[in-house]
Amino acid sequence: MISLGELAGQLGVELVGDASCNIAAVATLQTAGPGQISFLANSRYRRYLASTQASAVILRPEDSDACPVNALVSSNPYLTYARAATLLNPQVRQTAAIHLSAVVEPSAEIDPTAAIAANCYIAADACIGPGVQIGPGCAIGQGVSIGADSRLAANVSIADDVQIGQRALIHSGAVIGSDGFGFAPDQGEWFKVPQLGSVIIGDDVEIGANTTIDRGALGNTVIEEGVKLDNQIQVAHNVRIGAHTAIAGATGIAGSTSIGKRCQIGGAVVVVGHLTIADDVHITAMSLVTGSIKVSGLYSSGTPLAGNKQWRKNAVRFGQLDDMARRLRALEKQLKEK
Amino acid sequence: MISLGELAGQLGVELVGDASCNIAAVATLQTAGPGQISFLANSRYRRYLASTQASAVILRPEDSDACPVNALVSSNPYLTYARAATLLNPQVRQTAAIHLSAVVEPSAEIDPTAAIAANCYIAADACIGPGVQIGPGCAIGQGVSIGADSRLAANVSIADDVQIGQRALIHSGAVIGSDGFGFAPDQGEWFKVPQLGSVIIGDDVEIGANTTIDRGALGNTVIEEGVKLDNQIQVAHNVRIGAHTAIAGATGIAGSTSIGKRCQIGGAVVVVGHLTIADDVHITAMSLVTGSIKVSGLYSSGTPLAGNKQWRKNAVRFGQLDDMARRLRALEKQLKEK
Amino acid sequence: MISLGELAGQLGVELVGDASCNIAAVATLQTAGPGQISFLANSRYRRYLASTQASAVILRPEDSDACPVNALVSSNPYLTYARAATLLNPQVRQTAAIHLSAVVEPSAEIDPTAAIAANCYIAADACIGPGVQIGPGCAIGQGVSIGADSRLAANVSIADDVQIGQRALIHSGAVIGSDGFGFAPDQGEWFKVPQLGSVIIGDDVEIGANTTIDRGALGNTVIEEGVKLDNQIQVAHNVRIGAHTAIAGATGIAGSTSIGKRCQIGGAVVVVGHLTIADDVHITAMSLVTGSIKVSGLYSSGTPLAGNKQWRKNAVRFGQLDDMARRLRALEKQLKEK
Repeated sequence: MISLGELAGQLGVELVGDASCNIAAVATLQTAGPGQISFLANSRYRRYLASTQASAVILRPEDSDACPVNALVSSNPYLTYARAATLLNPQVRQTAAIHLSAVVEPSAEIDPTAAIAANCYIAADACIGPGVQIGPGCAIGQGVSIGADSRLAANVSIADDVQIGQRALIHSGAVIGSDGFGFAPDQGEWFKVPQLGSVIIGDDVEIGANTTIDRGALGNTVIEEGVKLDNQIQVAHNVRIGAHTAIAGATGIAGSTSIGKRCQIGGAVVVVGHLTIADDVHITAMSLVTGSIKVSGLYSSGTPLAGNKQWRKNAVRFGQLDDMARRLRALEKQLKEK
Repeated sequence: MISLGELAGQLGVELVGDASCNIAAVATLQTAGPGQISFLANSRYRRYLASTQASAVILRPEDSDACPVNALVSSNPYLTYARAATLLNPQVRQTAAIHLSAVVEPSAEIDPTAAIAANCYIAADACIGPGVQIGPGCAIGQGVSIGADSRLAANVSIADDVQIGQRALIHSGAVIGSDGFGFAPDQGEWFKVPQLGSVIIGDDVEIGANTTIDRGALGNTVIEEGVKLDNQIQVAHNVRIGAHTAIAGATGIAGSTSIGKRCQIGGAVVVVGHLTIADDVHITAMSLVTGSIKVSGLYSSGTPLAGNKQWRKNAVRFGQLDDMARRLRALEKQLKEK
Repeated sequence: MISLGELAGQLGVELVGDASCNIAAVATLQTAGPGQISFLANSRYRRYLASTQASAVILRPEDSDACPVNALVSSNPYLTYARAATLLNPQVRQTAAIHLSAVVEPSAEIDPTAAIAANCYIAADACIGPGVQIGPGCAIGQGVSIGADSRLAANVSIADDVQIGQRALIHSGAVIGSDGFGFAPDQGEWFKVPQLGSVIIGDDVEIGANTTIDRGALGNTVIEEGVKLDNQIQVAHNVRIGAHTAIAGATGIAGSTSIGKRCQIGGAVVVVGHLTIADDVHITAMSLVTGSIKVSGLYSSGTPLAGNKQWRKNAVRFGQLDDMARRLRALEKQLKEK
């Protein structure tokens, strides 16, 4: 519970309305009731503003006149909302302790302010920093280091020698440091190429559930600071992902590709190996990237959804496209000659 | 072991042949031998009927004449087969007990008929219903409720406050209730938006191995009753999946999208965020859905497979399609004017 | 540490240079220093040869003249490098023991030379062969057999009755033997079809992190010897993958499809169900395979990446392709008639 005036002060935004109004929680414009604060960041939801029962709404200056209740005026309502929600929902920390059922090798260093949950395994020479919270069932390999205030949910697997920065948040089922996919052809069979590098993860990185990040073959796979990875992403060996890049779920980045800083990559995108993607590149969902991208901007591939019958007709024609193009050129030539 | 007559009675279908014949197991038409029952549901397999060594075959009335052995006649042989297979292969239940190696917080309520396997962790205030079976290595968060007779395989992670209905079946590595992927842009960096909702799962839902379902940002992610999700599916925050919809492996549903009831979605489909998909929509594998679908039916996107050399030629022409269309229009105009 | 002469002997390749030079490690051409050996297999890296600080380089006969340092001459430098790296980085084995925190059912047979890490669960009648290493948090189902010298990383889940050959390497989060996705339609709802088969995995198979392999419905899912599967692959029930086939990350193979031997399948490919893919087929990343492939070769589908504005124009035209083809044909006819 916090007064609206105090909340506005902490968020550094202008209050229009009753500073003494008490706010206990956040909610959407449609569902909010008394004591709740909502936000309007996307014009998609403007229709809900007039009838909102929220005690206050965070919105842009230009929406302020239309607000029937108290307003917090912000040039970036979504960010202000995120900050308010964080203030109103402080994270509950695990108690700093090593659970009796956890197995910690003697040479591992666990900061006394860290929390290791039930059924974890911490291998030799691992170094777990201050305030780190490790959820139940995690396996932390030899020589792994995890920086201050990082948090691992349940059943995360970190392989040997991986280095994780501060304030990381790693969701359940994520696997970091598994072997890269490297094999030398040997007379119709495959000979495994040892994967001798590791994974280096910067500060303030979030890694989604069941996302996998392979260790480098020679040299490391690198996730720079502030990168946000959604669920079920596959990052192959020796990839580098630049600072503050965000990647949506189920995307795959093949080996040795380097992604720039502040990129935004949609879901289920595939970037093939050995490419360089510039800073500030945005890629729409399910695109296939087969060449390097040198200029920032928005990129896409794919074909539009259609009814299956219509799609079948057009898809068959895709296989005739080169022929169609040649025939079109021939017609143009023929008409010009006339 | 059951007599064919008794089996026909329990399945509620007509028997043509020897009611006293004993049936011990199910098998395919090609591999079945004495004491085994098979089925013919797909014309692809009709060629195996004449030579089958099965003691009985479940088939449609129109295939009954061609059956060289005992027959169970059903209008839906695949369903009848599934029922027969279920009768002949009763599930072996874990013994109702909490394994000594499991860690259960004192405030968790475990029904005495539930079974908690080795190395599980059950957090505070979780509520595990009658007949529930939880496999080894599962982590169940605070305040989670799991309804009667639900079953979790090994190494499943359920985050705080998730609610799961009755008779759920959740396969290994599935993660339910991980944070949604929500960040507010903040001067070239990302500020995490707290994910304050949960996941609500109805009765009779099956969730495949390594499938992930994120918790809602505000409000919940909802999986209605009877939904069947295959492996490695990604369900983002605030998605709703309608009752009895079935989704094949590796499909991704982006945030706030609502899928209708009884839909069938193929593998590796991507549905982008904030869409509404009607009831009874079918979508073929690897389609990209970028707009809402209002009418039930079969939808597709993508291009057909081809030899790489041929494909390269046509793929280049895809990038010239708009130009080709304009030139075609120009030719038509030119010819009309003549 | 090994002398270059001894290394050349063990690798069976020709040495050009100082046999007494000591080699301690492998490194890339750019980063190698004294005591390190590098390799040149890909012309992409030839520019680094002249300035390398490596003590020796593994390269092809035709590159030997340009090598400023000691050379090991090989017709397959990448394979020779892989062998050298393996020699120089012998795998550290877990101590043969069952960790005190592991739970092993009395009827399971654990070879005395096997190593079972912390917090594992080994169910009844499982059979763990000589030299097997099982990482922390793994769950091994009833009746599972794991052949000699196989290795499981952390948090792997193997369901009942799965058979794994010798020298398998299975990475964290992999799930083998989960139920196939089989349901019979029953008046708008789904009735589960029992998944009664298992998974049979040959010798020398590698399975990536968070890859899932479902058990057969009737009969088994089969992964033949020498198959290499990258991370996050989905293999559905009753699939067969032929010997020495390699599949990159995030690919999905739908039910009952049979993939030939020595195939190479790129990342995020989808192969629909009930197909047969011949031996030695190569498929590029993100292709959709909807029909059987009878002839070995390189196959592709998809459309090229483009700037979003350009892509939108062309993507719209994709939906007009059949119309364009008909109009092109009409123009040709019209011009011919003149």
